[in-house]
Amino acid sequence: MYRFFYAPNSCSLASHIALEQAGAAYEAIKVNLGTNEQREDKYLSINPKGRVPVLAAPDGILTENLAILVYISQTFPEARLAPLDDPFASAQVLSFCTYLSSTVHVAHAHGARGYRWADDPVAVSEMKRKTPETMGECFEMIETKLFKGPWVMGEDYSISDIYLFTIATWLEADGVDPARFPKVHEHRTRMLSDPIVKKVIAAQ
Amino acid sequence: MYRFFYAPNSCSLASHIALEQAGAAYEAIKVNLGTNEQREDKYLSINPKGRVPVLAAPDGILTENLAILVYISQTFPEARLAPLDDPFASAQVLSFCTYLSSTVHVAHAHGARGYRWADDPVAVSEMKRKTPETMGECFEMIETKLFKGPWVMGEDYSISDIYLFTIATWLEADGVDPARFPKVHEHRTRMLSDPIVKKVIAAQ
Repeated sequence: MYRFFYAPNSCSLASHIALEQAGAAYEAIKVNLGTNEQREDKYLSINPKGRVPVLAAPDGILTENLAILVYISQTFPEARLAPLDDPFASAQVLSFCTYLSSTVHVAHAHGARGYRWADDPVAVSEMKRKTPETMGECFEMIETKLFKGPWVMGEDYSISDIYLFTIATWLEADGVDPARFPKVHEHRTRMLSDPIVKKVIAAQ
Repeated sequence: MYRFFYAPNSCSLASHIALEQAGAAYEAIKVNLGTNEQREDKYLSINPKGRVPVLAAPDGILTENLAILVYISQTFPEARLAPLDDPFASAQVLSFCTYLSSTVHVAHAHGARGYRWADDPVAVSEMKRKTPETMGECFEMIETKLFKGPWVMGEDYSISDIYLFTIATWLEADGVDPARFPKVHEHRTRMLSDPIVKKVIAAQ
């Protein structure tokens, strides 16, 4: 039995969907970012970085959405969430997910959390102003260069799809019209029709 | 035979060291970031993201430093660059490396490449001003919470060590005194005494 710490409207939606699609036994625990619960001692004793998601496994604590997604895909191979028998294909999944975590999620974070990288309110506001442009560029890259179709990696569904879907749900809030990206938009709509995705969103 | 595209003073040093420690057969190709070679059509046809490193493998093109590091560790198991037989320990390596790629490297990038997230020169300058603080906080986290010793993950050397070393070489340029972090500092010195690390740095 895992304990899974998440917050609504965060990237933890991806790990949450993966846990559910893997058929894992877990308890989901909501962390209230609105009251800065992630900065309280109790939570920092679990994850000193003060972020979600966290997967508390029998072996210990695992942090970082990307690492949790890969761990779930490897621990529940029958769920077929990654091409585990093909190291190069697995590396391509990891490459795509790394782009999401270190470039796309970072671009998004400048919209609401620019204070991480600047104190001056004018600078923070300037970062927020540019977010639609940077997020738009990221999704242009995904739409035209990275997305193979019908799933992100081609014929086979993977954690790449779960993670892309999660970040794509932020587009409107980031001032980007998803209709600019027909393949990503159709993918998001298809993911949203999955009963497990619907169930997790409703649960959060 | 791999072809490996790198640039001096970038995170590609990590993949380069891993290739050499793995005993891989590769040709190293320097990309001149000073003349924006990474923005030329020829390079963009290899990596449309316009970044280094890139590993051109027999199976195709692999981008993102983190994905290349993991791929090398899996493709050359005899080099023992990751705990391949232990999924949870592997996930911990991935978690640490993800923190480096999506938080620490990002903090560093605000020092010289703030223009990615803001156009206003005042905002870009404000990001640069804060970089010593954010990088200091990241390394405080590594020093006090994440680094197990004697290697990052404890008794066993891994790609975590190569990647941490690479980013730790940027501390002085980011205005952070490495002496604040005795464990990381000693680790960096120990890594620098490795003949393979010396050879790769000299080659770059």
